[in-house]
Amino acid sequence: MVQKLNGRSRDRALARKREILRSAAAAFRRRGFDGASVEDIAAGLGMTKGNLYYYFKDKREILYFCQDHSADRMIEEAERIGRLRVPADEKLRRLIGAQLRCMLDELDGAAAHLEVSALPPARLDRILAKRDRYERAMRGIVEAGVRSRVFTPCDAKLAALAILGAVNWTAKWYRPDGPLTVEQISAEFGRILVQGLLRRT
Amino acid sequence: MVQKLNGRSRDRALARKREILRSAAAAFRRRGFDGASVEDIAAGLGMTKGNLYYYFKDKREILYFCQDHSADRMIEEAERIGRLRVPADEKLRRLIGAQLRCMLDELDGAAAHLEVSALPPARLDRILAKRDRYERAMRGIVEAGVRSRVFTPCDAKLAALAILGAVNWTAKWYRPDGPLTVEQISAEFGRILVQGLLRRT
Repeated sequence: MVQKLNGRSRDRALARKREILRSAAAAFRRRGFDGASVEDIAAGLGMTKGNLYYYFKDKREILYFCQDHSADRMIEEAERIGRLRVPADEKLRRLIGAQLRCMLDELDGAAAHLEVSALPPARLDRILAKRDRYERAMRGIVEAGVRSRVFTPCDAKLAALAILGAVNWTAKWYRPDGPLTVEQISAEFGRILVQGLLRRT
Repeated sequence: MVQKLNGRSRDRALARKREILRSAAAAFRRRGFDGASVEDIAAGLGMTKGNLYYYFKDKREILYFCQDHSADRMIEEAERIGRLRVPADEKLRRLIGAQLRCMLDELDGAAAHLEVSALPPARLDRILAKRDRYERAMRGIVEAGVRSRVFTPCDAKLAALAILGAVNWTAKWYRPDGPLTVEQISAEFGRILVQGLLRRT
């Protein structure tokens, strides 16, 4: 019974933490990491600042969890797509779409807009290691596509960096109230960026 | 005679300003805009801080001139390439190479690594207007390529943003002492990013 109650309060605490991350992501996007205050984040949830400090030590800890959550979600998608039984070009198009949705949606998107340089070194290293793992998963799809002769022989690392750059850069120009939906961007980027790798028959 | 002397001292002042921008670019690249001090920049030239203030009011003014010089150089290249009598795919490959050389070389490259957000609003607007002009020049090449049936019909704005993103992102990962030269990156990016736009015959 105690176990069960503990489980329930753990779930409640986790749900609360996610709400805080969502509010923080919105505040960071609006005002930038330096501009957003813990008061802003708490106020968005009808919480007091003191109440928020029960869940997170400070603003940098919130930034870390935003980045960490976003990185985990992207790695999970990349590795899931890598295991699908579809041709490499289809995997790559799906991964481009998944990353765009992850980056440009409300919660996780804000993380992409933020510099990680505000993180303390040990945490920065963990986020960078996760970004590397994501990059390797994308590169792995390109390499497999070259082996299966779907893609033309290329420098898979450079190809992955070109795609990642194009996709990451959307965080700089995409506006939720702009003329293009995330799905439209995904379709066009999937076409332009993947077609350049295809073996010309 | 007075005229001539004035001309000469103007040239000398301009040359000195360029040396300062070069030293500043190196200091910004090494330590970041916040981390680099005016003393660092002056020391790199064997100047005193006071002497440097004769040419530039403060560090933000140096940042502005770095960005402005880099933007002018890129616009000049884009407009020159746009006027060449070569097919659109060749223009686009040359522009990708020109932007990479401009971004990754010693002087101008540093500007690409810097956030412009430290600039005062009026100057920020001028830099952003120049970046827009560069983006339009690239988009114009894509549009002309679609009209001349070298490229497949596409959203030229999105295509230009994909290319710009891939190229701009190199500032995040390129290392002058890394395994790839700027020319190798240019060749592979030119191939991958332009081939995706070609009309498939």
